[in-house]
Amino acid sequence: MHTDDGRRRVIIEGVAPEIDGGRFPIKRTIGEDVTVTADMFTDGHDVLSCVLLYRPESEQEWSEVQMKALVNDRWRGSFKIERFEQYCYSLIAWVDHFKSWSRDLEKRIAAGQDISVDRQIGAQRVEEAATRASGSDATALTTYAGLLRDGSENIDIALNPALTALMYKHSDRDYATRYDKELAVTVERERARFSSWYELFPRSLRTETGGHGTFKDVEAHLPTVKAMGFDVLYLPPIHPIGHTFRKGKNNNVVAQSDEPGSPWAIGSEEGGHKSIHSELGTLEDFRQLVDSARSQGIDIALDIAFQCSPDHPYVQEHPEWFKHRPDGSIQYAENPPKKYQDIYPFNFETDNWRELWDELNSVFMYWCEQGVRVFRVDNPHTKPFPFWEWSLSEIKKQYPDTIFLSEAFTRPRVLYRLAKLGFTQSYNYFAWRNTRSELTEYLTELTTTEVAEYCRPNLWPNTPDILPESLQVGGRPAFISRLVLAATLG
Amino acid sequence: MHTDDGRRRVIIEGVAPEIDGGRFPIKRTIGEDVTVTADMFTDGHDVLSCVLLYRPESEQEWSEVQMKALVNDRWRGSFKIERFEQYCYSLIAWVDHFKSWSRDLEKRIAAGQDISVDRQIGAQRVEEAATRASGSDATALTTYAGLLRDGSENIDIALNPALTALMYKHSDRDYATRYDKELAVTVERERARFSSWYELFPRSLRTETGGHGTFKDVEAHLPTVKAMGFDVLYLPPIHPIGHTFRKGKNNNVVAQSDEPGSPWAIGSEEGGHKSIHSELGTLEDFRQLVDSARSQGIDIALDIAFQCSPDHPYVQEHPEWFKHRPDGSIQYAENPPKKYQDIYPFNFETDNWRELWDELNSVFMYWCEQGVRVFRVDNPHTKPFPFWEWSLSEIKKQYPDTIFLSEAFTRPRVLYRLAKLGFTQSYNYFAWRNTRSELTEYLTELTTTEVAEYCRPNLWPNTPDILPESLQVGGRPAFISRLVLAATLG
Repeated sequence: MHTDDGRRRVIIEGVAPEIDGGRFPIKRTIGEDVTVTADMFTDGHDVLSCVLLYRPESEQEWSEVQMKALVNDRWRGSFKIERFEQYCYSLIAWVDHFKSWSRDLEKRIAAGQDISVDRQIGAQRVEEAATRASGSDATALTTYAGLLRDGSENIDIALNPALTALMYKHSDRDYATRYDKELAVTVERERARFSSWYELFPRSLRTETGGHGTFKDVEAHLPTVKAMGFDVLYLPPIHPIGHTFRKGKNNNVVAQSDEPGSPWAIGSEEGGHKSIHSELGTLEDFRQLVDSARSQGIDIALDIAFQCSPDHPYVQEHPEWFKHRPDGSIQYAENPPKKYQDIYPFNFETDNWRELWDELNSVFMYWCEQGVRVFRVDNPHTKPFPFWEWSLSEIKKQYPDTIFLSEAFTRPRVLYRLAKLGFTQSYNYFAWRNTRSELTEYLTELTTTEVAEYCRPNLWPNTPDILPESLQVGGRPAFISRLVLAATLG
Repeated sequence: MHTDDGRRRVIIEGVAPEIDGGRFPIKRTIGEDVTVTADMFTDGHDVLSCVLLYRPESEQEWSEVQMKALVNDRWRGSFKIERFEQYCYSLIAWVDHFKSWSRDLEKRIAAGQDISVDRQIGAQRVEEAATRASGSDATALTTYAGLLRDGSENIDIALNPALTALMYKHSDRDYATRYDKELAVTVERERARFSSWYELFPRSLRTETGGHGTFKDVEAHLPTVKAMGFDVLYLPPIHPIGHTFRKGKNNNVVAQSDEPGSPWAIGSEEGGHKSIHSELGTLEDFRQLVDSARSQGIDIALDIAFQCSPDHPYVQEHPEWFKHRPDGSIQYAENPPKKYQDIYPFNFETDNWRELWDELNSVFMYWCEQGVRVFRVDNPHTKPFPFWEWSLSEIKKQYPDTIFLSEAFTRPRVLYRLAKLGFTQSYNYFAWRNTRSELTEYLTELTTTEVAEYCRPNLWPNTPDILPESLQVGGRPAFISRLVLAATLG
């Protein structure tokens, strides 16, 4: 069987960026450029016209940019992101007989050859273009064709830029090759690309009296955060904390009666992931904090950790979302021989996975409704990748300005896959890269390879549970150099 | 909308080899291995089973090879090509709960933990596997499960290789991830991978009398070719030579009356691409040569050049296959300002391209019918890529042992694209790579990148129309070093 039309002679391959064969979008913010390169060539020596097509998702019509030839059949074109919505791009290229004719004509003239027949060939091309044009373009083309035919005008007329432009505009695309994929660009707000995160534990904020800090204390602290230059204020989980197997301070597995427990042991009789730890304040206080922060140019980021204390309401209401052991107990988190008995992970292999997914997704939706637009997601690499792809896309459909920071850095493939699936920013290995060669190698990977198209590294220096050796022993100079490195490399 | 089943937790990506997203097959000969690597991982810390699937095209059933974990979630597996037909390969991987359980059990034992509940969990997994098994496997699994449950046997039973093997054999693949592509392997005969080509002009072979050499002379010369170690004897076009604008010797554009012309100016009143230049002998002589060569382990390779002398019968019979100029003449080949008036190229943009394709394809078929199985294709890069993809595949369907050498080396993308489309071996830039660093860089590209999967470089030193500077000035030592380089690098 022959191909559909053997006259489609142009090959398009090696398109970049194209993440995993187009399976995933690249990421941009408004004002950024998308530069596309591709190998485009045909048989023989004909000249091509190569065009980058792009459009915001809501537009039917493609915009076009003529691409420029680099070397070795590679072409490049760019467009700018101007709207806050997903974009698509693709390519189209064709053998441009008029361009080939013009190129050859110049050579023939330079060689002093007889070009009388070539004038007629060119005139014919221009006449054909005139039939594809209308109005003044058609008139102009017909005039040019006549001048070429009758020979009264100098041949320079054929190389006139106005004619070249008209011939491109009305080029014969009948046998153009259209790239067989439409590639996507996820467009996010500027803070997705560049933001400076500050983390604090609200309960520790009432430094003077020593009592439990509240959202109101955080609100009072906002100007200080702002003055330091931060634009995201990230809070550890703000939900009720479990009491079963509550952990104490300094890694003590048993808490004293006055110890508050880890905020990542989420859920108690007071509620779960949609409730607020009462000592922090009310939902009204929280909304007030979010609004106040926004008015000062700061996003409040919530830490979403999908795991439950044994006291979480889900454990009673949805025992089918957890793994049950033969002795009747629920499987706690563990990394044998280590046990984390204050935490029950969800069992994503439950037959009721759809209900579980819906509920977890609704947690994000709930906090979006309260005005939150930035989430730091705890351990996303211990929940199925298909869940994240679905959930992040669901949330962004309704709240497109939402930013998700992925706390996954155990393994490079996992880190990158989560970035591909929709996480806006990513934890990474920056904190452990110290020497010049380590930093050069890692930042080269992050900024000059395909990774840069979909993964935005968040260059944090330390976290409440990670203090790299360099900071433990390096003192203030180490912290300052991290700051400067993060600011300049970022 | 949720995904089809959120419990398919394994990701498969970064599969290699996979040429242009699976658009093109890789190439192998019988006895060669196909080694496949891929990134495979899941959320959390569960252990995977990863399997390479493969089958000869004519088999319905997939064969399986368990893959081995390398580092950073990369897995590797291999299979051997044992039949002379196309192969397919793909991947499947699943979260293997029994493997995770075994790994954790070892850690628990090492830490001296109570494993009574873990025995029950393990027993349950084994019982489930028993329901998927039958016959002696089911019996054995049930016995193992009982031993785990009742606790009378030492826990080492759980780590018994026989149990491990049975559990793998009857693994729960309900939520396995199957790679979404089936990738192809083109299988060719050994000479596709490794062959040593000798080129001669039959007409020049009668050195003693000085007359026109014939196929019989070539036949007599075969033992000499064989003795030098060659296994392919390549002949320039053997068809009738045109007389219009016939070229003379030493680049003379006008031939003297006794000059034979270039064999690449194909076609005269005597016939075209399916005819034999009468001075070489008869079709019978040619078949005799092919048979005689084969019996000595030599393939006769024909040069197929799809272009016509103005005297070719096609020009009269199919004027629609050529480009016509406004002055009524047919467009000859040119690279302005250079003119090649003894050659008419085909116009592949003709409305009759289907008929043209069929006729050109029939040229290969005709010579295959005469016993030829090796073709050197002249200037394939001046004919459309879709034609080659179609024609080479058509011929191989009927004559799977056919070998095509592509004479295209003007541009790297073009060279590689033709190799991807089905050419068996490729001209390349070896002849122009002289220094150590040039050779290292080029051979590294050819042998250690994805190129090695689909492009087999033919490391020729020179041709009748290419004599690289190094051989012009380097004398015998340069030829010897080329020979050694080609032999060892190849």
